[in-house]
Amino acid sequence: MHKYAIGVVGASGYSGIELCRVLAAHPAVEMRFAASDRWVGSTVRSRTGIGGAVGALSYVSNSDALTAAAGCSAVLLATPAEASLGLAPALLERGVRVVDLSGAFRLSDPGAYPRHYGFEHRAPGLLDAAVYGLPELGDRREIAAASLVANPGCYPTAAALALVPLLRAGLLADESIVVDAASGVSGAGRQASEAYSFCEVVDDVRPYKVLRHQHTPEIAQSLARAAGRPVPLTFTPHLLPIRRGILSTASARLAPGVRASAPAEALAAAYRDEPLVEVLETPEEVSIARVAGTPRAAVALAVAGSGFDPGRVVVVSAIDNLLKGAASQAVQNLNLVLGLPERAALEPFPGVSP
Amino acid sequence: MHKYAIGVVGASGYSGIELCRVLAAHPAVEMRFAASDRWVGSTVRSRTGIGGAVGALSYVSNSDALTAAAGCSAVLLATPAEASLGLAPALLERGVRVVDLSGAFRLSDPGAYPRHYGFEHRAPGLLDAAVYGLPELGDRREIAAASLVANPGCYPTAAALALVPLLRAGLLADESIVVDAASGVSGAGRQASEAYSFCEVVDDVRPYKVLRHQHTPEIAQSLARAAGRPVPLTFTPHLLPIRRGILSTASARLAPGVRASAPAEALAAAYRDEPLVEVLETPEEVSIARVAGTPRAAVALAVAGSGFDPGRVVVVSAIDNLLKGAASQAVQNLNLVLGLPERAALEPFPGVSP
Amino acid sequence: MHKYAIGVVGASGYSGIELCRVLAAHPAVEMRFAASDRWVGSTVRSRTGIGGAVGALSYVSNSDALTAAAGCSAVLLATPAEASLGLAPALLERGVRVVDLSGAFRLSDPGAYPRHYGFEHRAPGLLDAAVYGLPELGDRREIAAASLVANPGCYPTAAALALVPLLRAGLLADESIVVDAASGVSGAGRQASEAYSFCEVVDDVRPYKVLRHQHTPEIAQSLARAAGRPVPLTFTPHLLPIRRGILSTASARLAPGVRASAPAEALAAAYRDEPLVEVLETPEEVSIARVAGTPRAAVALAVAGSGFDPGRVVVVSAIDNLLKGAASQAVQNLNLVLGLPERAALEPFPGVSP
Amino acid sequence: MHKYAIGVVGASGYSGIELCRVLAAHPAVEMRFAASDRWVGSTVRSRTGIGGAVGALSYVSNSDALTAAAGCSAVLLATPAEASLGLAPALLERGVRVVDLSGAFRLSDPGAYPRHYGFEHRAPGLLDAAVYGLPELGDRREIAAASLVANPGCYPTAAALALVPLLRAGLLADESIVVDAASGVSGAGRQASEAYSFCEVVDDVRPYKVLRHQHTPEIAQSLARAAGRPVPLTFTPHLLPIRRGILSTASARLAPGVRASAPAEALAAAYRDEPLVEVLETPEEVSIARVAGTPRAAVALAVAGSGFDPGRVVVVSAIDNLLKGAASQAVQNLNLVLGLPERAALEPFPGVSP
Repeated sequence: MHKYAIGVVGASGYSGIELCRVLAAHPAVEMRFAASDRWVGSTVRSRTGIGGAVGALSYVSNSDALTAAAGCSAVLLATPAEASLGLAPALLERGVRVVDLSGAFRLSDPGAYPRHYGFEHRAPGLLDAAVYGLPELGDRREIAAASLVANPGCYPTAAALALVPLLRAGLLADESIVVDAASGVSGAGRQASEAYSFCEVVDDVRPYKVLRHQHTPEIAQSLARAAGRPVPLTFTPHLLPIRRGILSTASARLAPGVRASAPAEALAAAYRDEPLVEVLETPEEVSIARVAGTPRAAVALAVAGSGFDPGRVVVVSAIDNLLKGAASQAVQNLNLVLGLPERAALEPFPGVSP
Repeated sequence: MHKYAIGVVGASGYSGIELCRVLAAHPAVEMRFAASDRWVGSTVRSRTGIGGAVGALSYVSNSDALTAAAGCSAVLLATPAEASLGLAPALLERGVRVVDLSGAFRLSDPGAYPRHYGFEHRAPGLLDAAVYGLPELGDRREIAAASLVANPGCYPTAAALALVPLLRAGLLADESIVVDAASGVSGAGRQASEAYSFCEVVDDVRPYKVLRHQHTPEIAQSLARAAGRPVPLTFTPHLLPIRRGILSTASARLAPGVRASAPAEALAAAYRDEPLVEVLETPEEVSIARVAGTPRAAVALAVAGSGFDPGRVVVVSAIDNLLKGAASQAVQNLNLVLGLPERAALEPFPGVSP
Repeated sequence: MHKYAIGVVGASGYSGIELCRVLAAHPAVEMRFAASDRWVGSTVRSRTGIGGAVGALSYVSNSDALTAAAGCSAVLLATPAEASLGLAPALLERGVRVVDLSGAFRLSDPGAYPRHYGFEHRAPGLLDAAVYGLPELGDRREIAAASLVANPGCYPTAAALALVPLLRAGLLADESIVVDAASGVSGAGRQASEAYSFCEVVDDVRPYKVLRHQHTPEIAQSLARAAGRPVPLTFTPHLLPIRRGILSTASARLAPGVRASAPAEALAAAYRDEPLVEVLETPEEVSIARVAGTPRAAVALAVAGSGFDPGRVVVVSAIDNLLKGAASQAVQNLNLVLGLPERAALEPFPGVSP
Repeated sequence: MHKYAIGVVGASGYSGIELCRVLAAHPAVEMRFAASDRWVGSTVRSRTGIGGAVGALSYVSNSDALTAAAGCSAVLLATPAEASLGLAPALLERGVRVVDLSGAFRLSDPGAYPRHYGFEHRAPGLLDAAVYGLPELGDRREIAAASLVANPGCYPTAAALALVPLLRAGLLADESIVVDAASGVSGAGRQASEAYSFCEVVDDVRPYKVLRHQHTPEIAQSLARAAGRPVPLTFTPHLLPIRRGILSTASARLAPGVRASAPAEALAAAYRDEPLVEVLETPEEVSIARVAGTPRAAVALAVAGSGFDPGRVVVVSAIDNLLKGAASQAVQNLNLVLGLPERAALEPFPGVSP
């Protein structure tokens, strides 16, 4: 079978390793190189235990990645946003298509970068060219045609999967939407800091970056696109003492006159033909364990018909932050870009349970 | 020194054990009996490792508790609500004062019990007599004079400590307040069910009893009393893979014209003279680890001056569900009832860190 | 491609689910049925999230398994030992080959069953017929020819992989071998008991079944076969607050005159051509995280040349108790029995990291 | 009541914080200073949540500790061994007695330091003067008279409590003793390294420093003193994914002719009057959870009368590495040195359960 040549930059981070792991089982892609300044010279297998052809690769330096990318159909960037800002234009110039897992190309407004990411955007033109790659909610033909795909953030994926179908169906009032979400520690990447040491994280839960997390504008952008208007959003992320997984609990007010059954119907309709988004009967069935180690999302909702605040809807969603929130979603996008079946290498997917 | 005789019923549950542990170090209270059908005949020490005079007690059956209570100044009930409903009146008739840790006497409206607790309230007259015992937010003279103290629930304690000062100061708009909170597994009590087995809980987070948790009316009651009006409330509890601790994240809209600094000032003022409620500078400092194993609460807030939903306030609070959410708050109430210093046995308190 | 029809009985236990997960990705096996009294009527997908053809199966009752097995080439039994004792002969009579994951057919001495398993063995004749299926240490042709394969226990797999090569090479003195090992909680299977509740297991480590664990005779049997003599063995298992994985630390005395480098050489030689057993340079590299979620074992050793007890060797090994200690080893055996490549469905294997 | 003035150096490490916590509740000791270069200027309360007079102290620098120690009866050193090597002589010269929690003065043989601690011992004369402070196994009058107490290591405390009574009673053969032990992560102290980050430690167990841990000579020294001869020892430590606690599993051969009941009798006799060492009926009752957060040890044993290696004894012990393995044992020693009741501040002690 013909195999498409691809490469991964940033291959030693948690998302990068996850990309290698998923791609190691890909039937139609040949991973040509794994770039990581950290592990240059080691094999992927020795560092990660991944077997097969991917395991046999030796890491090359990030600066060698451009050379290594020659002849590749596409490259996946699991690099920090500022690194992606440099790498993506260089790859695109060489005719290599890019799926970027950082936030560098996710926001359409360049003015948002200084405040939320701490840098002036050096390639604002690419913000227009980049296609936001959340296949279940986007336009797959647009992703397939893109030279540069901005792979969504983990929290934004969880929040958008929960809320976009309701906003598109016009079911939510123009009131504040509250998203309280919590992530496993791998979301913070590899850390050599005391704050992320075992003793400081285990048995604890805490909020972080309250009212100033860089994913807030990305969530707001997705909600606004779906609603066709700005959506007031309060987003609070929390750190969980687990390795993987995000749980998002969103609450909003139903628009006047909306039937209590309408939100669940909208959710079911949105994902009826989407094998990677599982709509469950009740929010209590949605849990991190259900999706950890899998490329799937789980989502469900409840509506307050009576009680202490009638007319509210609570939508709960869960994903694995390293898979549907990063690597497996990137492989969905890669598959679309290469014209392959979208779920190649993602079905069946072992997962882990218990 | 004179010591007041007291007893504990339900002494083998997690809250009951915690009561024994706290009371073992109490300088002015003599624990006369520990009742538990589960461990009749064993010593407290053999089951829990607690030393001293409390450790030397042998558990008596719940049915022997009434006899054992003769001569006691007060009894603490760490029993299920339906058991407390039977025990409290019998103790009160015998002239024994009661601090009840269950929900049996927390709601002023007897009509709320069938829906939220699943039983018809058999002693509605006691709902008027019972004093809700959250000392930092209540009237300490009223608690001190009470025959029956209803010790608050864990989630309601965390939520009220965060929101009552803002509502009392008139800082919040009459819009939905959203409380997303998460609890360690000990909040569910001892469990011999697969759902609470290690493999089903660890590495997972999930919501439960969405829009139907029995603490919702209790939180709503506290908020309404503080606001002087009904407060629209959406409360979603979550289960965390840790043993102890609750983190509550509440968000609300500021009333028109409220200065951005007013909420923090109100919080600081409310707890300026309250050693067991620590007001921190930023919500990121509030964490379960900060309070786990202690009788203290931690609380802090942030206000959105600009951004995606200006005028919102996020208040984060944390307690140990078994201490400030149960046993240590009950000892605060017991101390008030007995005319002892409120923090006797609670200061200094070792805690656990890391 | 031709696919062999197989079935799984006991498909709702942790090992049974793991079998379904591995077999869902098997290119040459068609899983015809999943039997479990617990979940009759549900689909595998609804209970486990496993997709594809395996996920679409509905669980049948154990009593329907014999009927369902008609036409199957082989059946995997993930049932308790006493259930396997009844099922295996019935399947063999119908010409269906069996890989049994229980201890029912692992010990060659029927007299060991009453003491270690608590029952009189009803089919002692099958103990001779059964082949102990640890491919890396056994005779693969013998396994391939077997009608009944006894899939090794989890602790015995970890201990044998560490010690058998040294015993076969005659490197160990005839002194006590000490095996201290520790397992994640999934090793105890699904539990609805307080002892395995989250609060009783988390943050704890404890020994269990000291000097009386039913895996002791199985380990002793493997060591004796390798040594050609009885081997004095002290085995102590411990319970770990993790879901998956076994770590085994074995120590023994080197035979007189053995060079310090000989044990590492023997280990390397034994597994040079075994992709599923990774020999590492130092015991510190062996960890549960390295193998959890994978079908691989990791093993390494250190020799005390001087110090407080010269001439001792410490061999550390790690496996995932549900995979190399159960399901993936069963699939290795199934592949051998069916004449398929031994690592079909097991390479590459995603695993989970972090 | 008269209070003895004392100070703590190294007060920001995990053991140092634990010392502050225990001393905060001490009825007869006044903590005058807490030294820590890390937190100079902050209050103890703001960093640790500890209340009362100890909480009100502001950290001073280590270099100010000598000045601050003037007028103190004793100082506790929770500093690294090399820092203690400098501080202890300076304090002793000023007439201040010292309890040192590091390994700097534990080994009687100065020649052992270069190999096991990586430095040449600069004050070998103090090795003779220092008294090894394990009260339950030592000579309390000797500790009470000491100017310098070497507080035992965590693993050595757990191992000695298990084995010394059996060796003193002459019950063990002159064969290898194997100690496999495992510690929570706090044993490694505060860490800002990737190796101790949450994601690298959680869900994992691994051995470390195999055959070369610096506690090995200390354990060997205790065993040799008890036996009156060198004792062959193989010690393997492991890292556990929990914060606190050590579990030690020791196995040894009984001397010829020893009755099977003799070891349990020796253990019971040794600790009959020792409230801080709990002798349990069976090893399965010994667990980290039983002692975590307490100053107590738990110990129990089993003897193999028959089976696969008759005549072996397995002794299991558990302590909290930060308390009986460090801070609370130091307070026992401090109390002895000051002529106070040995368990002042340690009884009753709350602990944590669940």
